[in-house]
Amino acid sequence: MNLKRKDILGMRELEAEEIALILDTAESFKEVSTREVKKVPTLRGKTIINLFFEPSTRTRSSFEIAGKRMSADVINISASTSSVVKGESLRDTVQNLEAMAADVIIIRHPASGVPHFLARHLRQSIINAGDGTHEHPTQALLDLFTIREKKGRLAGLTVTIIGDITHSRVARSNIFGMRKMGMQVNIVGPTTMIPVDIEKLGVRVFSRIEEGIEGADVIMALRIQLERQNQSYLPSLREYARLFCLDLARLERAKPDVLIMHPGPLNRGVEIAPEVADGPYSIILDQVTNGVAVRMALLYLLIGG
Amino acid sequence: MNLKRKDILGMRELEAEEIALILDTAESFKEVSTREVKKVPTLRGKTIINLFFEPSTRTRSSFEIAGKRMSADVINISASTSSVVKGESLRDTVQNLEAMAADVIIIRHPASGVPHFLARHLRQSIINAGDGTHEHPTQALLDLFTIREKKGRLAGLTVTIIGDITHSRVARSNIFGMRKMGMQVNIVGPTTMIPVDIEKLGVRVFSRIEEGIEGADVIMALRIQLERQNQSYLPSLREYARLFCLDLARLERAKPDVLIMHPGPLNRGVEIAPEVADGPYSIILDQVTNGVAVRMALLYLLIGG
Amino acid sequence: MNLKRKDILGMRELEAEEIALILDTAESFKEVSTREVKKVPTLRGKTIINLFFEPSTRTRSSFEIAGKRMSADVINISASTSSVVKGESLRDTVQNLEAMAADVIIIRHPASGVPHFLARHLRQSIINAGDGTHEHPTQALLDLFTIREKKGRLAGLTVTIIGDITHSRVARSNIFGMRKMGMQVNIVGPTTMIPVDIEKLGVRVFSRIEEGIEGADVIMALRIQLERQNQSYLPSLREYARLFCLDLARLERAKPDVLIMHPGPLNRGVEIAPEVADGPYSIILDQVTNGVAVRMALLYLLIGG
Repeated sequence: MNLKRKDILGMRELEAEEIALILDTAESFKEVSTREVKKVPTLRGKTIINLFFEPSTRTRSSFEIAGKRMSADVINISASTSSVVKGESLRDTVQNLEAMAADVIIIRHPASGVPHFLARHLRQSIINAGDGTHEHPTQALLDLFTIREKKGRLAGLTVTIIGDITHSRVARSNIFGMRKMGMQVNIVGPTTMIPVDIEKLGVRVFSRIEEGIEGADVIMALRIQLERQNQSYLPSLREYARLFCLDLARLERAKPDVLIMHPGPLNRGVEIAPEVADGPYSIILDQVTNGVAVRMALLYLLIGG
Repeated sequence: MNLKRKDILGMRELEAEEIALILDTAESFKEVSTREVKKVPTLRGKTIINLFFEPSTRTRSSFEIAGKRMSADVINISASTSSVVKGESLRDTVQNLEAMAADVIIIRHPASGVPHFLARHLRQSIINAGDGTHEHPTQALLDLFTIREKKGRLAGLTVTIIGDITHSRVARSNIFGMRKMGMQVNIVGPTTMIPVDIEKLGVRVFSRIEEGIEGADVIMALRIQLERQNQSYLPSLREYARLFCLDLARLERAKPDVLIMHPGPLNRGVEIAPEVADGPYSIILDQVTNGVAVRMALLYLLIGG
Repeated sequence: MNLKRKDILGMRELEAEEIALILDTAESFKEVSTREVKKVPTLRGKTIINLFFEPSTRTRSSFEIAGKRMSADVINISASTSSVVKGESLRDTVQNLEAMAADVIIIRHPASGVPHFLARHLRQSIINAGDGTHEHPTQALLDLFTIREKKGRLAGLTVTIIGDITHSRVARSNIFGMRKMGMQVNIVGPTTMIPVDIEKLGVRVFSRIEEGIEGADVIMALRIQLERQNQSYLPSLREYARLFCLDLARLERAKPDVLIMHPGPLNRGVEIAPEVADGPYSIILDQVTNGVAVRMALLYLLIGG
């Protein structure tokens, strides 16, 4: 079986069988990173472009490592060093990269919808590595992979997502993906941070964290973006932490074998208590490890074989 | 046959037979980028340094892709991240890279003449990737390659170059190269943007675009640097576009099989109309594709075999 | 024999036999960079992270070249492009990289002690590429390698180090290393730039350069950091040069076969006269060349075989 699409733009577009295929493929690639020699020739002679218009350690490195472990040539372009500073239009930039026979362009951009726009105009594959407040599908896929790995299944599980849902591309992508895989999604956050129509996506909304966590198999705390502090919809960090910080006491409400997730980077003591982030239920570093495997799988499915 | 020089500094220095050799070599390398596995072992174990003191997506990526497709190790150094910020002299920087057994240093620098200065003091190869308003020889070589590929020849063709000739290293390098290959070069632009003695290079100067285009086989529109707007020699962008924008109406004056070129990045609607840039005569993306082949050829001729 | 440690944090920690092992190993790797094909498969499938929180051309490139010549995958992360700008804690950043199955993290950081802190919390190897004013062990190792290569031995030699000892991680690392290898170390500089208790490290302190140089086998001039000019402990550059610049006249006091070293980048005419830096006694570029060999050796000893 193969992916029937040239791009990975969002979880909204992917079908459940496609998601399952990606997770299955990632399973077989995960082993590569545990070898003494972490290298397979799968993508030898392929050209992968990492085109990042926002700073990123984790996602960019994860894609770069994934590509290199598959023997691809990986080219990094970050906005600050690119000729985008000369006013070149984004579409021209990407068409130029295509003209150099790039096989896939991985793009992160602060504006929602940019990867979709580019994908319509280009022949080669686009992977959305995060676009504005819209989607971050590879994060959702690695989250699903990690839950499935730990729980043995996805359907029927209850996941609680806590934080600024309105501005979180991680939350949006996960909601789309989890619902498609038959999971129940609880949403928790200040009302100023919950989109008005979010129930239409099939989630349940809670304003009190204790209620939202009740019976959860998985809890995902989102990063509070500190730079939003001065904006009216975020209470003070202290107030946010008092009401929504995932701490040990609140964890009591969840299932005994609950899993704790976070897309990173962490603000310890704000959205998550240090003893929870580093505690026995945390699978935060598993998420990072699995990110490489999932991205290897995507690259393979799009441009390999 | 082989290049009898260690550096590629400018088109002024290259002889016609050398240019022909480079274009012939590029022809054989172009096929590599069309393969399923875009990789040849030609430069395995060679170290290529991309030393860029100006931002660049296209040229830097093109060299990096060229090097990697030939299996070289490519090291990127950009001014902002280099110890040049500590006041290290440029010559010391480059001598250090040489001491690390770099085989070739590709340099872009805002000051004219820098690559020539370095080449005199170093044993290893220097490729000029653009120096100030002086030369950009790899751009001219890829332009010549693209014209020859499309027209089957160079000698006897008429090329019209439109824009800010005074500040264009692309124009200078192309004028040197095209004249050597037996081409007629027409120059068009505001008089404030045409160097006074430019006729000495064997070109014809026109102040009206309609006259300059008359009978052209190839038209190359140069990028207007928007940051020069506040300087006295550039009329307003609107005025520039009115007088010099390459649009469909003006194209009528050229030969029916005219080729449209642009070194990028494009300012659509300023120096070139969108329908011309994206129209059937445009070979702008071919230029980009061929840039990789020409740079592979140069790397091979300088440090391969 | 093998290194019995997972990290290279400082010369203070290394024992004399370990230093000797590293230098011996570097000797065998030096030849690789002189080959036509500068590439060995030693670290194929290993992942090396260059995590630099300060700008650097030389050290970062040296590690990158070392890694690539051994066929490792090398990932560069510089502070300005990393998600450290989002306030991610350093430990989280590095743990994430570890979770992606990095084999070694090479870190440069403006705060002293950071590599030691990270090494305690991580399973994988850390190499200190310079931490604040604390240590720069790979620089000291390449310095020792270069002296041993030129003189045939280390024990019994007298080295004079001139400059801002207080703020020099190069000086500190060299003092530790040289004393362990049985060398005599003379320290010269303005009294405001000499730590008060420095004699406890087994060095002799001189405030007059002529006396400090007397009978030296090796002289190492340190870089004066121009940005410290406005701080009270540095006299004006002119005054510093008058009192401490290593010029030909002063060189007379040293042994006739004295070696001149400098960690770079050079301020010619401030701490070292141009005719000394570029003269026959200078082994400054040998230091750079040997840096690649020493770093190859360290990578091999930590994560190879």
